[in-house]
Amino acid sequence: MPAPSEFLKYIDGNADAFIKRLAEAVSIPSISGDARHRKDVFAMADWLNAQLKSVGVETQLVDLGRHTMDGEDLPLPPAILGRLGNDSSKKTVLIYGHFDVQPALKSDGWDTEPFTLTINEQTGQLIGRGSSDDKGPILGWLNVLQYHHENKLPLPVNLKFCFEGMEESGSEGLDDLVRRESQKGGYFDGVDCVCISDNYWLNTRTPALTYGLRGLSYYKVTVSGPARDLHSGVFGRTVHEPMTDLVHLLNTLVTPTGDILIKGVDEMVPPADEEEKKIYEKLDYSISDIEQSAGASIALSDDKVNVLMGRMRQPSLSIHGIEGAFSAPGAKTVIPAKVSGKFSIRLVPPQTPDNIDPLVIDHLKKAFAELGSKNTLTVENLHGGKPWVADHRHWNFEAAKKATKAVYGQDPDLTREGGSIPVTLTFAESLGVNVLLLPMGRGDDGAHSTNEKLDRSNFIEGSKLLGTYLYELADIQK
Amino acid sequence: MPAPSEFLKYIDGNADAFIKRLAEAVSIPSISGDARHRKDVFAMADWLNAQLKSVGVETQLVDLGRHTMDGEDLPLPPAILGRLGNDSSKKTVLIYGHFDVQPALKSDGWDTEPFTLTINEQTGQLIGRGSSDDKGPILGWLNVLQYHHENKLPLPVNLKFCFEGMEESGSEGLDDLVRRESQKGGYFDGVDCVCISDNYWLNTRTPALTYGLRGLSYYKVTVSGPARDLHSGVFGRTVHEPMTDLVHLLNTLVTPTGDILIKGVDEMVPPADEEEKKIYEKLDYSISDIEQSAGASIALSDDKVNVLMGRMRQPSLSIHGIEGAFSAPGAKTVIPAKVSGKFSIRLVPPQTPDNIDPLVIDHLKKAFAELGSKNTLTVENLHGGKPWVADHRHWNFEAAKKATKAVYGQDPDLTREGGSIPVTLTFAESLGVNVLLLPMGRGDDGAHSTNEKLDRSNFIEGSKLLGTYLYELADIQK
Ligand SMILES: [Zn+2]
Ligand SMILES: [Zn+2]
Ligand SMILES: [Zn+2]
Ligand SMILES: [Zn+2]
Repeated sequence: MPAPSEFLKYIDGNADAFIKRLAEAVSIPSISGDARHRKDVFAMADWLNAQLKSVGVETQLVDLGRHTMDGEDLPLPPAILGRLGNDSSKKTVLIYGHFDVQPALKSDGWDTEPFTLTINEQTGQLIGRGSSDDKGPILGWLNVLQYHHENKLPLPVNLKFCFEGMEESGSEGLDDLVRRESQKGGYFDGVDCVCISDNYWLNTRTPALTYGLRGLSYYKVTVSGPARDLHSGVFGRTVHEPMTDLVHLLNTLVTPTGDILIKGVDEMVPPADEEEKKIYEKLDYSISDIEQSAGASIALSDDKVNVLMGRMRQPSLSIHGIEGAFSAPGAKTVIPAKVSGKFSIRLVPPQTPDNIDPLVIDHLKKAFAELGSKNTLTVENLHGGKPWVADHRHWNFEAAKKATKAVYGQDPDLTREGGSIPVTLTFAESLGVNVLLLPMGRGDDGAHSTNEKLDRSNFIEGSKLLGTYLYELADIQK
Repeated sequence: MPAPSEFLKYIDGNADAFIKRLAEAVSIPSISGDARHRKDVFAMADWLNAQLKSVGVETQLVDLGRHTMDGEDLPLPPAILGRLGNDSSKKTVLIYGHFDVQPALKSDGWDTEPFTLTINEQTGQLIGRGSSDDKGPILGWLNVLQYHHENKLPLPVNLKFCFEGMEESGSEGLDDLVRRESQKGGYFDGVDCVCISDNYWLNTRTPALTYGLRGLSYYKVTVSGPARDLHSGVFGRTVHEPMTDLVHLLNTLVTPTGDILIKGVDEMVPPADEEEKKIYEKLDYSISDIEQSAGASIALSDDKVNVLMGRMRQPSLSIHGIEGAFSAPGAKTVIPAKVSGKFSIRLVPPQTPDNIDPLVIDHLKKAFAELGSKNTLTVENLHGGKPWVADHRHWNFEAAKKATKAVYGQDPDLTREGGSIPVTLTFAESLGVNVLLLPMGRGDDGAHSTNEKLDRSNFIEGSKLLGTYLYELADIQK
């Protein structure tokens, strides 16, 4: 069932009013990571709550308690739960979004005031903090609801909402809420699928659906020797130097071309079959796109499929740095007493921190034993998270594909992201239903950067996409 | 010719007065590395100049000009040149010392006020900044001169003095002065040998003569790739990571047991013959001494001769750290865009920065080419200095050996140091005469550390040693 043409017309006809509403949302500096702005996150919750009510959503604010940030005891902003429609013959979709934003100061290098939505009439960019991450997408849903509310039209599906105000600061309190409300009789009981609009197209041209995220396992490997830093003149070639040992350990982790040398890690991942490879071949993304975004011609290969699979469906190991060694400019002839290498592995199914940890620890212990050093080794896992991959042939994705084709006239890129959005996994695991990531913005939106923007066409067509997706969902065979 | 017994008695009899004079010297905080104390370095020069004059030395203060430190334009403290005696039938000895000191604050962890000489009656330690480095030794010479001046006795040799106030801050201005005054007709023309008392015994028990110092060549190897730091989620296994490349390069430099892997570096140094090995066998120093001073059981070998030769007569390569990588506590998932490894090689003859540089640069370029990386490599030599080794069978050393035997009743350890005292090489090269390092303090004096001390017995017996050395010098066959 395509979306009614009146709906599409309504979105176009009210574009300016929608942008004005986005400007209102952007003007509230709801920075969750800055204690001084905590009141603004609360104000943003109130604003969104009022907006939801005005388009007919039955809402409740859920107190998530308090937390300590930068040594200060603070109240957590509430989560907003909402529902609209309760027709047992319709599917029920859970929609997630976050109304907090990253910090932003004009002095960071913004060309405009970050909390004043600035419209560049030439490029069509709507510039402001939160325009794309994640106020634009939330307001896209409001736009859809407003049409139905004003015209007293029932929605084609039942909706449930979960909006939070701490996403940019670790989604504090949300996991517990989601797990609790996903149980029998909970607020999310009966949800058939989830839709999250909080990521981006691969490029600036092609709409995308995202069906995977990598997990992470972060390690700190420490070699310690002398009781204090030593002078290399006095002790050079006299004692086992922790830094020499650590360099030899870090050297055993990954090749310059990205192959992971820890036995069993790469091997755990089944190779892509021809059908899966075709997904990567089809992606509207080139080596030059990658090199442009890295700012240098340093792609690991000239083969687009290889490079994209490296990012999306293979684990990766990056060495981030060393704590405890000499790191300042200049020349210091120190033998550091205790040095800690930091590296992390991005995980893909079936890898988890739990099954990767023993491989990493065992590898490092063996490699260290081979050095024959009298220094001491310790290995810690600092934090981690599981990867997530959804079935992109699921009806939830099929509905989104049809909606994309209807609104944009083209098939969406089917992408997996190299990073993680932890709440995705929480919903998937707690509810046991398919989760779709349906991005509104483009790959160059600069979500956590200066001059964050959402293109006007992405906001307007994106609102049409969200509404159309609901109509396609209603129609599709479960 | 042994020193007159009256001289030895005089030193014992005036010990308290000598310690009082040391307390006066320590009370002037002549920290050359701190602009706020520059006036104190000048005050120290005036104090020392007056002391030298009072014992009959003809002195002159040499203006060394100005320099910039921490962005401030400052006058350099003067060098003090002096002479005593001009008997062409006697040998002429040049004596060097420095009257500036390292910084010290009680809050650094000192048990006492650093610029108040504190006498621990139980241990006999004279505790205070500069007590051992290098005011104690300079005052040792004053003690010797005072005896001869008061008793109107001629010295057995002619003396020339060169005292500076910038040693702890790179001896700024001194090299030029020494080279200039070493020329024909210069202040140092006619000098037969040099004696520098500015280092330490190997241990706390055995007097030492030092005949070698290692040189240094310090390198910065930089790998740069992307235009800015990247997120490891987005770019992991997509691009060549500079940190991976750098770790692989650093891994090719040195083994965990200290062997240098850069072709030609270790090979340049001829092995020790049996006679030389005996010097190391004889040294009053054990593996447990080394491990005690390192604070851990991490010696590279259980063989004392191997370990001591590693420090004294072999080159060493230490990796000091990495600039540009993530070095703070915590976990950050960054791919650093540009990382610089810092390492240095301690040099022994015939190695020099000039003949080592091409080997290092060539090695790194080849190793980088083998990585097949698309990143960019640069190698810089940040600074360097040549090693120095003197003939320990020279009459200058023989006189010091006899003096040691006479004062301490034991043969001195013949040592080479792993670090450098650059002015030693300047004197040796400019004058073309033998230079002797004749330490006064013990290996645990803590020269650049908290609670620096000089043992009372080292100060008093050390003053006798300096005087006796002059008498033995006078006697010995050139
Ligand atoms: Zn977001
Ligand atoms: Zn974000
Ligand atoms: Zn010194
Ligand atoms: Zn010093």
